[in-house]
Amino acid sequence: MSQWDAFIDQLKFDDRGLISTIVQDHENGEVLMFAFMNRESLKKTLESKLATYWSRSRQKLWLKGESSGHTQEVKEIYFDCDKDCLLIKIKQNVAACHTGFRSCFFSKYENGEVKTIGEKVADGE
Amino acid sequence: MSQWDAFIDQLKFDDRGLISTIVQDHENGEVLMFAFMNRESLKKTLESKLATYWSRSRQKLWLKGESSGHTQEVKEIYFDCDKDCLLIKIKQNVAACHTGFRSCFFSKYENGEVKTIGEKVADGE
Repeated sequence: MSQWDAFIDQLKFDDRGLISTIVQDHENGEVLMFAFMNRESLKKTLESKLATYWSRSRQKLWLKGESSGHTQEVKEIYFDCDKDCLLIKIKQNVAACHTGFRSCFFSKYENGEVKTIGEKVADGE
Repeated sequence: MSQWDAFIDQLKFDDRGLISTIVQDHENGEVLMFAFMNRESLKKTLESKLATYWSRSRQKLWLKGESSGHTQEVKEIYFDCDKDCLLIKIKQNVAACHTGFRSCFFSKYENGEVKTIGEKVADGE
């Protein structure tokens, strides 16, 4: 039993064993991405202080930035009243989005149009 | 066909017909809650500019604040690179959380302990 099991046991994972995770810049509050963790990826995140998710498309642990170097240092961890959603505040190295934008939320809907408003800080994959 | 159908058609709803929705204070960037929308609740949100979700527990449309008066005026709408997550920036009237806290993310995990760090601004339900 690790020192984190008591915390992890409090949380509610869905029928796939996953918990929704909102990722926010710890300094300016920008929402950078949305992903899923399972128990193992959350434990890895707590141990290493580097955000580690569960990739639903690849069905494996996903250390964010493992290939790109765009890692996320975890500074703070919150969870919601239902205990089924995490909010992590991180220091983002370069880009959170695989397209090279700093945030995955670079598309804004306004007055019937979609506008690209984000900051591109790296080449996309 | 409504003026919003072209926008809504771009988004990816999951096999339950739902899209994850992150709710952020439009002024100070605080993440207030996490909920789900379906096509109909998103259309209602766009029409009324009041955040309307799909309640999974009650299996019905949920106009946030309908009974409590703690409504959310939608100021900006974003979506992510995968088009399967919305980020809405809102003006929160009183409390986002049914417990009376301003944000649902009032619990912080730190050094093996869970701390309540949020601001309670109303009586809980």
